[in-house]
Amino acid sequence: MGRLLGFLLCFPIFFISATLADWNILNQRTKSGLKISLKSYCESWRINVELHNIQDFSVVPEECVSYIGKYVASSQYQVDSERAIEECRLYLSTSCPLKKDGRDAWLFDIDDTLLSTVPYFKKHHFGGEKLNLTSLEGWMSRGKAPALEHSLKFFDELKSTGVQIFLVSSRREHLRSATIDNLVDVGYHGWTRLILRGPDDELNEVKQYKANVRKQLISNGYRIWGIVGDQYSSFEGLPVVRRSFKLPNPLYYVS
Amino acid sequence: MGRLLGFLLCFPIFFISATLADWNILNQRTKSGLKISLKSYCESWRINVELHNIQDFSVVPEECVSYIGKYVASSQYQVDSERAIEECRLYLSTSCPLKKDGRDAWLFDIDDTLLSTVPYFKKHHFGGEKLNLTSLEGWMSRGKAPALEHSLKFFDELKSTGVQIFLVSSRREHLRSATIDNLVDVGYHGWTRLILRGPDDELNEVKQYKANVRKQLISNGYRIWGIVGDQYSSFEGLPVVRRSFKLPNPLYYVS
Repeated sequence: MGRLLGFLLCFPIFFISATLADWNILNQRTKSGLKISLKSYCESWRINVELHNIQDFSVVPEECVSYIGKYVASSQYQVDSERAIEECRLYLSTSCPLKKDGRDAWLFDIDDTLLSTVPYFKKHHFGGEKLNLTSLEGWMSRGKAPALEHSLKFFDELKSTGVQIFLVSSRREHLRSATIDNLVDVGYHGWTRLILRGPDDELNEVKQYKANVRKQLISNGYRIWGIVGDQYSSFEGLPVVRRSFKLPNPLYYVS
Repeated sequence: MGRLLGFLLCFPIFFISATLADWNILNQRTKSGLKISLKSYCESWRINVELHNIQDFSVVPEECVSYIGKYVASSQYQVDSERAIEECRLYLSTSCPLKKDGRDAWLFDIDDTLLSTVPYFKKHHFGGEKLNLTSLEGWMSRGKAPALEHSLKFFDELKSTGVQIFLVSSRREHLRSATIDNLVDVGYHGWTRLILRGPDDELNEVKQYKANVRKQLISNGYRIWGIVGDQYSSFEGLPVVRRSFKLPNPLYYVS
């Protein structure tokens, strides 16, 4: 007993920080008085972001930064993303009577859909600090973003069916060559068009810009079978396409 | 060592079932070869249902029935739902300039939005068996579904702002009096209209029926500020309203 007490007194800082780090010990209450752990609180924040009930957040809540950091580094994030892609595959093989006339189309976002920004956010508090566009674009211009492997595999499968692939990103035009280099470097090639935001598009919200792109593609005779993206702004507004597939992304919100 | 072995040999059934019940021990692999626990697999199934990547499922996958049963009985389900309602409250107080002319409107689903069907599904394999409409309607006709407490609280708050409340359900007309009795019994009163599916509506998919209701309400001069529902069929199609709030529901899918 004396030895245990001595041990605890020797390591008070370790003991306290270990306690704080254990979500299940750090209990709190919801507004209705429900007693929950911080982990449970952050999980409900994350699922409500994915349900699109929480919108327009500018930072990840400070108390959830560690939880979100763990999630995007976890196999759960990988499995959640893989399952989303698996559903694309299922839809493509069962519900898309492709005409194979060069007008079958599929749209992809780039960031956190084809390429991962997790390495950037790992160094920037996992979304817990307000986004600095200059800093993020600086990182993008170095072209070192890794591929999301499940997306890359599906991209190649789509290509082999003859579907035209359009990359529709909110990245700005000045990042074009860095973006192409990065995509090719990690294995993406053979897309039909890379569409980035020009100066005029920057006057609109991203969802309006992306809706305009869909409208244009459809008026050019393309049948958009599906979209894969990590933001609701990639699917919202008119025209609505047959199916949209949302990859998980609790790091930031693009409206 | 001998004693331990003797102990294990005495309780082989207990030992095996305890092992199987421990999700973290029962490992399997995803299609790409990622090694995951059954819990992780079922969590990715659930989040992809909520993301609307998985659609039209007729039963919960057998291997996830226990996981889903635990989720809907858990405080996590309560916290997830409470957070969704909290976001309704935030939206109402910051982004809805109500005119208070009797034409401000809000729509609610009934099942698993105002009233819980969890007690029914608890006796029916938590969505793991194909839905038997006769059996479910028999249970509904007894009018014993409990309220979702967070929804009830928000319902009362909405009412106090003068917003007209419309209950738009895929329940059929013959359940009208049982539904009213059930709602009133658990504390809901003061709604403007209860809209149920008549024989003509049954010819349409639920999402078409609900879109028709929104169209009718808007043509009657109502401004629909928001919808709370647990199914994407409550929000899909035109007209799109300002905001939709999706409560979690991994038990069944209504298209």
